[in-house]
Amino acid sequence: MATQMGIAEGIKRANNEFMTRLSKAAPSLVRIRQARDVMPVLSDQTVLHAGPPITVERLCGPMRGAILGAIVLEGWAKTPEDAAKLLDGGRIGLQCAHDWNAVGPMAGIISASMPVLEVRDEPSNTTAYCTINEGIGAVLRFGAYDAPVIERLRWIGDTLAPPLDRALEKLEGIPLLPLMNRALAMGDEMHQRNVAASSLLFRTLAPALAKQGASSALARILEFLGENDQFFLNVAMAACKAMMDAVGGISSCTGVTAMSRNGVEFGIRVSGLGDTWFVAPSPVPDGLYFPGYGAADANPDMGDSAIVETAGLGAFAMAAAPAVAGFVGLASAREAVATTLAMSEITLGKSPHFKIPALDFEGTPTGIDLRRVIEVETTPIINTGIAHRRAGVGQIGAGVVHAPIEAFQQALAAFVERYASPAGSQSRI
Amino acid sequence: MATQMGIAEGIKRANNEFMTRLSKAAPSLVRIRQARDVMPVLSDQTVLHAGPPITVERLCGPMRGAILGAIVLEGWAKTPEDAAKLLDGGRIGLQCAHDWNAVGPMAGIISASMPVLEVRDEPSNTTAYCTINEGIGAVLRFGAYDAPVIERLRWIGDTLAPPLDRALEKLEGIPLLPLMNRALAMGDEMHQRNVAASSLLFRTLAPALAKQGASSALARILEFLGENDQFFLNVAMAACKAMMDAVGGISSCTGVTAMSRNGVEFGIRVSGLGDTWFVAPSPVPDGLYFPGYGAADANPDMGDSAIVETAGLGAFAMAAAPAVAGFVGLASAREAVATTLAMSEITLGKSPHFKIPALDFEGTPTGIDLRRVIEVETTPIINTGIAHRRAGVGQIGAGVVHAPIEAFQQALAAFVERYASPAGSQSRI
Repeated sequence: MATQMGIAEGIKRANNEFMTRLSKAAPSLVRIRQARDVMPVLSDQTVLHAGPPITVERLCGPMRGAILGAIVLEGWAKTPEDAAKLLDGGRIGLQCAHDWNAVGPMAGIISASMPVLEVRDEPSNTTAYCTINEGIGAVLRFGAYDAPVIERLRWIGDTLAPPLDRALEKLEGIPLLPLMNRALAMGDEMHQRNVAASSLLFRTLAPALAKQGASSALARILEFLGENDQFFLNVAMAACKAMMDAVGGISSCTGVTAMSRNGVEFGIRVSGLGDTWFVAPSPVPDGLYFPGYGAADANPDMGDSAIVETAGLGAFAMAAAPAVAGFVGLASAREAVATTLAMSEITLGKSPHFKIPALDFEGTPTGIDLRRVIEVETTPIINTGIAHRRAGVGQIGAGVVHAPIEAFQQALAAFVERYASPAGSQSRI
Repeated sequence: MATQMGIAEGIKRANNEFMTRLSKAAPSLVRIRQARDVMPVLSDQTVLHAGPPITVERLCGPMRGAILGAIVLEGWAKTPEDAAKLLDGGRIGLQCAHDWNAVGPMAGIISASMPVLEVRDEPSNTTAYCTINEGIGAVLRFGAYDAPVIERLRWIGDTLAPPLDRALEKLEGIPLLPLMNRALAMGDEMHQRNVAASSLLFRTLAPALAKQGASSALARILEFLGENDQFFLNVAMAACKAMMDAVGGISSCTGVTAMSRNGVEFGIRVSGLGDTWFVAPSPVPDGLYFPGYGAADANPDMGDSAIVETAGLGAFAMAAAPAVAGFVGLASAREAVATTLAMSEITLGKSPHFKIPALDFEGTPTGIDLRRVIEVETTPIINTGIAHRRAGVGQIGAGVVHAPIEAFQQALAAFVERYASPAGSQSRI
């Protein structure tokens, strides 16, 4: 009994530490780096992918498509057909991006030559990376890999990334939490909707880019950045990854530090359980489909982007973004508020950084508590894009996903095994 | 009795016409023009000002300060002291901006050399003008007139306006209603808060400016536009002026087409009563003051900016902008919603253009009905900035103003006189 009390006390202390560390976060977008320079694993014929680790045989269609595109981009093969031979022949290394301080939306493929956003959280000495958002339509992250996709990626690497990096250096980085909090007050939840954050970031970047001196590419660069409402999603993901890595590995802590999907499995990590993934089959999102598509076409949920929900944004901040409600299939602004309130039931506290004006500036529910998820039988809700299950088609809708409870049940069992005595019951924890 | 029925029927038809015309509005920001080229009255030593007409003896401090600045800017005098002599000697013509298809925030001074935003509403063949927003701090519109203020105005005219005009021509104008509706979904009410609309406009303008070719001024221009959260206010004012002029002069119509203040008097215009102003003393706003200032320092309410409330934005759209609530002295997001709902009691209908996500995309209350204002004894609420009563000090706070009922009472009396039989009672109208 004394031991059980000790465990409960230890969890309480650990979870307080989780929230305290979180309150100290101050991530900044500091540089654009080439992936190979900051992720040594990429020097070989290896790519990073979203979600928990997966083998080549089990890859879903869109992730496979994105990998073929990356192989062509890197010049490891000349055609998608040759790329497929390399991939199926076991010649391409697959690594989980989360293991390399990185995240990627949807397929989340990162390969050596891709530029990545570098977000630095000084207080925790944490750095996180994410690819640069390609825009919408036929894009690698949704599994498209034809020539225009590869050309756009080359343009991003060759033309966009260098001046963007110089602009960020000149600005000495862009503190992200004030910008993100401001975007929340402008109707972004920073998963499905990033138009405010993207616009605010653009306002900061455009003059700094113009100061690089007259470049013939400037107008095209400003157009690319200015037209992309989701540009900030990848920045938000890197910021949230840095914040969540900073609260990882706290002994006895029941706070969730990652939720992610590889298109086949949905996985979570828990602070007190380190880097272990607890996985369950990835669900197909409930949502709205573009004309001509339906649930039968949908790939199971995919991407590292659920890191934003893990940090208290996305569906957790739905009350801040009533305009998203209809887009993801909710009936009303009231349901948007209800989503945020439901998430308050399973979190350790309120975000000290992200405030919702419509709730009189209450913080968003933050710090998913493994115990509460099991206790109240409510799993995190995630706003998400829906990819076609076949490689090469792309996005076919958007909706919400309820994280599978099995992943949390497994995590709790592991937590009990690690921290409780053999006789410890779950209810004591 | 039959005549009374005829009048009521006539008003109903006229007010339907008001709302029908409004639904057809499609204002676009099309050009930057020099004021003298589009307002012939300015060729003489004349300036336009905000609010109903006023004589030099009755000018409030900040409007007087702004006029002194304009006189120096135009070179009619070398120093503010000499400018004061010209002004007090009756050598400067004062004209109401509203009479020249123009509006201006706060003092609203427009002089010959100033560039003005040109907004064109094709469906109604209406054109409206507003100055370019100078930014915050010591600015002409709040009555500041020292050298840096004049220099900034020169820079706006010489350096900013020409490429901005070329960019707008290249873009073939920017349709404003979609942008404004989008900004409403991003927490702007477009009077106190224009950060979303300013950012969205900036995203469109920046690439077009860069396409003008490499100019050494580009970085500074982008900085000026990118740093000014209220840049769009003046655009919104011109758009609302065009929309309201398009519903002016409808016989028997009780819809209000202008609310404006010259810092001494508050005036309204009513569609069925043409260009006549109905005035009452301008109230001092209730609100929050910057440190060191209080109500005793405040000038009575001033500016043409209430044209945005007249068109269903500003305080009428407060429910869309909970972040504004605290800034203008409301206690909560609930009070923001209550403000919008209260305005529904005095309006002819809902805006077909401006929708509020938090109210499940209901249109903002639009078309202030003179009769309803009197019937329910509720006058329009206006979000407003507060100027110091002395010339040269500038902004000292922000708050809300309730339009004085006396202006509406006078308008109703005039309406009765024009449209009802001598025996007609107000309640029949």
